[in-house]
Amino acid sequence: MVTNLTEEIPPSIWSGWGDPARARPLSAGALEFLRRTLKLASVEATHAPVDLADVRVRPAALDEAVLAELRAITGPEHVSTFDSDRVLHAGGKSTPDLMRRRSGDALDAPDAVVFPGSSEEVGEVLAVCVRRKLAVVTFGGGTSVVGGVEPLRGRFSGLITIDMRRMNRLLHVDPLSRTATFEAGIRGPAIEAALAPRGFTLGHFPQSHQEATLGGYLATRSAGQASTGYGRSDDLVKSVHLQTPAGPFDAGSPAPGTAAGPKLLDVVVGSEGTLGVITQATVKVSPAPEAKVYGAWSFPTFAAGADAMRQLRQHGRRGDMPHVCRLSDTDETASTFKLGGWKTGILSRYLTTRGQKKSALALFVWEGDGRQCRAGKRRSARILRRAGGIPVGPLPGKSWEHGRFSGPYMRDELLTRGVYVETLETAAVWGSVEGTYTSVRRAILDALESNGAAAYVQTHISHVYSDGASLYFTFLAGLEEDGLAQNSRVKEAASKAIISAGATITHHHAVGLDHAPYMAAEIGDLGLKVLASFKTTLDPEGIMNPGKLIPSPLEPQP
Amino acid sequence: MVTNLTEEIPPSIWSGWGDPARARPLSAGALEFLRRTLKLASVEATHAPVDLADVRVRPAALDEAVLAELRAITGPEHVSTFDSDRVLHAGGKSTPDLMRRRSGDALDAPDAVVFPGSSEEVGEVLAVCVRRKLAVVTFGGGTSVVGGVEPLRGRFSGLITIDMRRMNRLLHVDPLSRTATFEAGIRGPAIEAALAPRGFTLGHFPQSHQEATLGGYLATRSAGQASTGYGRSDDLVKSVHLQTPAGPFDAGSPAPGTAAGPKLLDVVVGSEGTLGVITQATVKVSPAPEAKVYGAWSFPTFAAGADAMRQLRQHGRRGDMPHVCRLSDTDETASTFKLGGWKTGILSRYLTTRGQKKSALALFVWEGDGRQCRAGKRRSARILRRAGGIPVGPLPGKSWEHGRFSGPYMRDELLTRGVYVETLETAAVWGSVEGTYTSVRRAILDALESNGAAAYVQTHISHVYSDGASLYFTFLAGLEEDGLAQNSRVKEAASKAIISAGATITHHHAVGLDHAPYMAAEIGDLGLKVLASFKTTLDPEGIMNPGKLIPSPLEPQP
Repeated sequence: MVTNLTEEIPPSIWSGWGDPARARPLSAGALEFLRRTLKLASVEATHAPVDLADVRVRPAALDEAVLAELRAITGPEHVSTFDSDRVLHAGGKSTPDLMRRRSGDALDAPDAVVFPGSSEEVGEVLAVCVRRKLAVVTFGGGTSVVGGVEPLRGRFSGLITIDMRRMNRLLHVDPLSRTATFEAGIRGPAIEAALAPRGFTLGHFPQSHQEATLGGYLATRSAGQASTGYGRSDDLVKSVHLQTPAGPFDAGSPAPGTAAGPKLLDVVVGSEGTLGVITQATVKVSPAPEAKVYGAWSFPTFAAGADAMRQLRQHGRRGDMPHVCRLSDTDETASTFKLGGWKTGILSRYLTTRGQKKSALALFVWEGDGRQCRAGKRRSARILRRAGGIPVGPLPGKSWEHGRFSGPYMRDELLTRGVYVETLETAAVWGSVEGTYTSVRRAILDALESNGAAAYVQTHISHVYSDGASLYFTFLAGLEEDGLAQNSRVKEAASKAIISAGATITHHHAVGLDHAPYMAAEIGDLGLKVLASFKTTLDPEGIMNPGKLIPSPLEPQP
Repeated sequence: MVTNLTEEIPPSIWSGWGDPARARPLSAGALEFLRRTLKLASVEATHAPVDLADVRVRPAALDEAVLAELRAITGPEHVSTFDSDRVLHAGGKSTPDLMRRRSGDALDAPDAVVFPGSSEEVGEVLAVCVRRKLAVVTFGGGTSVVGGVEPLRGRFSGLITIDMRRMNRLLHVDPLSRTATFEAGIRGPAIEAALAPRGFTLGHFPQSHQEATLGGYLATRSAGQASTGYGRSDDLVKSVHLQTPAGPFDAGSPAPGTAAGPKLLDVVVGSEGTLGVITQATVKVSPAPEAKVYGAWSFPTFAAGADAMRQLRQHGRRGDMPHVCRLSDTDETASTFKLGGWKTGILSRYLTTRGQKKSALALFVWEGDGRQCRAGKRRSARILRRAGGIPVGPLPGKSWEHGRFSGPYMRDELLTRGVYVETLETAAVWGSVEGTYTSVRRAILDALESNGAAAYVQTHISHVYSDGASLYFTFLAGLEEDGLAQNSRVKEAASKAIISAGATITHHHAVGLDHAPYMAAEIGDLGLKVLASFKTTLDPEGIMNPGKLIPSPLEPQP
């Protein structure tokens, strides 16, 4: 059975997300709710992207000799200098990325896109780039929302993007040890489609699942919607094979546990393409769940719901923790009710009669053996009820799961309708969750409303740990004339609030370009020097993804 | 109630383990079993250590000006140049360490031992050592069995050992997030004694628990006897504060999860004193268990038992996994029966009547809520029985727990009786556990028996992962005249067998001096260069623990 976990869709279009034919347009009611909430005169579709033919791209800078070298490695059909390919690799999928491209600006596009077919070919391409002094960006699904795949050439005259899509095979499964080895360019649905017949799942489902690649997961330390149960990508990975300018590098041990010095795998995981190209990875896999059991509970406040999540994690039985745990604040719950049609209207009225005029909705999915899931849910229900939760049945969870990958499509429509929307995220220890939530939310609202406009912020927890939780903010306002400035303003205010709260600058979106200025606050100046020291060892010329992760002054300067 | 988990004992004596008054001598039967098995003419106590007064120590090399600087930092009473202190810091507790010291060789002893009282003092001591070009060894419990605290001065004319024992405080507990911050010199029992009144446990109990320190755990990526349940030290740590020659360094995020680049904490954890001195650490703690439930099952072969462990981990319910999982091979089980007195004799005869003339004994401890533990045991029993296990009751588990920290005392007595005994360990994925076991065991036996002597090897699994397990080998033979050569011969043979099997050179003993030659096989030449790059950044002069972890040619050479 093909599900939204295994169905492969085409790579995203140049101006937005995925395959637009799969987008479900916003209902009239939803649009009216937005118009009213954001105090907009209109939400008509007046801001469509320019025509692809009108997109501005710089002239490709590579001379024929370089192209000939690249073509000799991959075959001529796997090196493209077509503008259509260059625009498709002109950046990721952050809202400012989309605003730029939709307005016709793809000036930074790479000079060529190379589609290697093997790890060895990647190594040879890097050797050419070292010799020819060309910057290199590795491109998986291209789903970065922090500028991670922006083709910034820095001090280099040319830039090659390596698109990993051809390297998409399952290489090996070890059913006894429950591990699988893949080429790194395999996308989320293909991972699941390859594992399903063998009875396994990776269990890694970020919202970008349908486009993102395994290599991208590991390069960014991604977390997925079921990571509370299956673990983050950095928990799942056992080893990676990396091609670097200094040669091939295997990081990670085949052993299940080792004390053989620092864990170099954790230097490569999260390195965001700045050290080399992840070409293969071995990951832990889990038995595909026989059953999924859904539940949802309503809490009077976000704080009450968050504390219930904590109790569930800390006081529940080992093993009863749901794989998916999400708690929306009252704003996100309200917008879900508004946008969800008559069923959620009934739910909202029911909660009002139970004394919850405002509701913070928590939803859960238990995965695995059916009996075990049901028992886990039954025992969890006792904790959640004692914590003030009102059970509201399985539908919210099922409905969330059905639409779990559709958010990015909605953003494309909102931008076309002149609505600015972006997300950002952090994580904090339990004692700081409420304070971080309040101050970051306030900073976002203040930044968006600073010119008298109306804005909406909604927040959820999606990853629950023994020591704290993630916080994910989605915020909307009318699109200002200078949308890029609007975006910078709110992003800067929110980032400063996150740093002040002592939370992390990113829980799962990674650093890329956008968070690099906050890395000194995150890891200290000496930490930055340590980061730079690996970079100098593996990428002495500094060709790999310049400007990302490590603030530029620390990058290698030959 | 003071237990063997919370009872603090004095730091180890110079020639052996712990407080010899606590050692239980081997019974006459046990000695006879050993004599017969190892085909020895005698196991009389003819090899006692020399008198402390006869130990040879090099003259202390530090001039008064240096000592005055050190004394000004810590106070004069916390800088010692007494031979008695220098001998106590002349190395760790590997069998060759003990053989050297027992024979009167402490020539490598440090020139001075400094006992700092704070992280700032450690920083100031390092600054003196950088300026004065002195090598530095950090000494926690001094329990390394791989040469991790050998005072090797390399190209430096002097060496300071920093003994962390005064830095033994619990600094902060966050009960909401279940984390605790300690000074790094706190020893195992003091950690538990500090947490117990607050209802928590660290759950980290290596055999060295009664002597080892938190900083030592983290510097070596240690695993403990209950790590299958609570996690390894590298799973438990959230952040560390490190003093380095380049300045103070905080590694690790307060956030419960982060995607902010490579995990620098994993560069410091496992760095074995080569980058700096861990002075504080924040770790996850768990509720102290209300109950412990014990069980043991006998299997006809080690392979059958190992496969049962795998099934328990992979097919058991999430959360039912015992905290302690140990499986002895038939040799270790036989020696346990022989040395255990009449009760184990009855057990052995019972198993023979059930068709297991040879037995590989698995024992388990479930910890936590009593009902949950009993249910976990009940369900686990079904898996273990289906896998061929015969239940043998709770006694083997309780008996093991009672003697869990006594192994090192027994070694001291064996050496005195002319019996060579040492241990080594590795870990392998499930598909390689049996092959690694067989080939490493064979290599040890061949090396020990190469001159016609008799030897005994016994093996256990003590850490069970989803993808594999640890293997721990204990081996005995008559002590040869050149015990150090005997030890090198067997250690080299075993290490080569481990590398050939594709297993890790160390699962929890760490690298130190002894495993450094195998690091190229473990992490590759480029991996070594990456290791060296951190070292150059944090310790540019190369004063920190020279010769350990990183093979010498790659160490900084100013």
